[in-house]
Amino acid sequence: MLDLKQQLDFVLELDKLKSVYRKAMVKSDNNRFENSAEHSWHIAMLAFTLHPYAEQPINLMRVVHMLLIHDIVEIDAGDKFAFAPQQELDGQQALEVAAAKRIFGLLPEQQFNEMNNLWHEFEQVSSADAQFAKAMDRIAPLLQNMNNNGGSWAINNISKSQVIERNKYLKNLTPKLWDYAVQQIDIAVKNGWLIDR
Amino acid sequence: MLDLKQQLDFVLELDKLKSVYRKAMVKSDNNRFENSAEHSWHIAMLAFTLHPYAEQPINLMRVVHMLLIHDIVEIDAGDKFAFAPQQELDGQQALEVAAAKRIFGLLPEQQFNEMNNLWHEFEQVSSADAQFAKAMDRIAPLLQNMNNNGGSWAINNISKSQVIERNKYLKNLTPKLWDYAVQQIDIAVKNGWLIDR
Repeated sequence: MLDLKQQLDFVLELDKLKSVYRKAMVKSDNNRFENSAEHSWHIAMLAFTLHPYAEQPINLMRVVHMLLIHDIVEIDAGDKFAFAPQQELDGQQALEVAAAKRIFGLLPEQQFNEMNNLWHEFEQVSSADAQFAKAMDRIAPLLQNMNNNGGSWAINNISKSQVIERNKYLKNLTPKLWDYAVQQIDIAVKNGWLIDR
Repeated sequence: MLDLKQQLDFVLELDKLKSVYRKAMVKSDNNRFENSAEHSWHIAMLAFTLHPYAEQPINLMRVVHMLLIHDIVEIDAGDKFAFAPQQELDGQQALEVAAAKRIFGLLPEQQFNEMNNLWHEFEQVSSADAQFAKAMDRIAPLLQNMNNNGGSWAINNISKSQVIERNKYLKNLTPKLWDYAVQQIDIAVKNGWLIDR
């Protein structure tokens, strides 16, 4: 039963992701900040809903697993706003790699290897599955902000070019979603929700 | 692009699950109530971690999909405490069936059918996949409460027999987890977290 003890320690540790808060806002809940656990659920549902737009073969199971684990490292490393200044983002990568090792390291070795490798694949965007997963992670705030008067973009004075750069993974793998994103970004600029540069 | 509009309407509607609060408590976040979106994430991770304990073949992809969608109906129907009096639970089923029709009905027909059927399969526990998914949904509060001085059990004066009944889906499909649950329930009684009847 050693494996079970390790697996349950991991599962209980995951509870902490519910207290890691992002800059995104939950419109349906008085615009409180979104936590990384519910965000992970939402983007997994995005993948289940939008996978028909992937123009290369993807393994939906691996994509969903990646999305569900991609933010677990934030339990130790914290959430960094996507548009934080570069000096804040430098150093974050090393913290996250160490966090992956510690938290997935709670698991028995085979599951540690599986989840740790999957997390690195996502981080390095080194496969079509990881590209699609990244695309889901990054289109989510766009959808939320467009549905919420600009949301975290408007509050943090984000520019069009920053959002275009964040969503580049849509372009190759899901051109229809890329076209949609570009249209929406133009509307956001017209509405004053994104700075036009 | 009609499909995409429908799919994105569905995805945005899902945001509302982040404002449906359960009786379970998030220990890592000052014991605030847990919402159904982050709960859904957590039990999907439970399935990824504990699926080796399933003693019949299960399709993990279907199990995870079920777990991610199982509470979406609560957007309309609200969350009912598992141990609410029977008269409160009566009528809930009809509300949930109508909610599934409305919310999954935002999707294009093929995806509506897929998710609505999967939700009904879960509700009716009509397959090994649904049994395993139910087992994950129900062992989660046990793990949380045992890690939190009895949590929602202790506050709501829940009894041993109620928790045994809730966790019965573990017994056939995952006897090792069932043995673990029974041990834990005995400890909870000794600690005064569950009433001994």
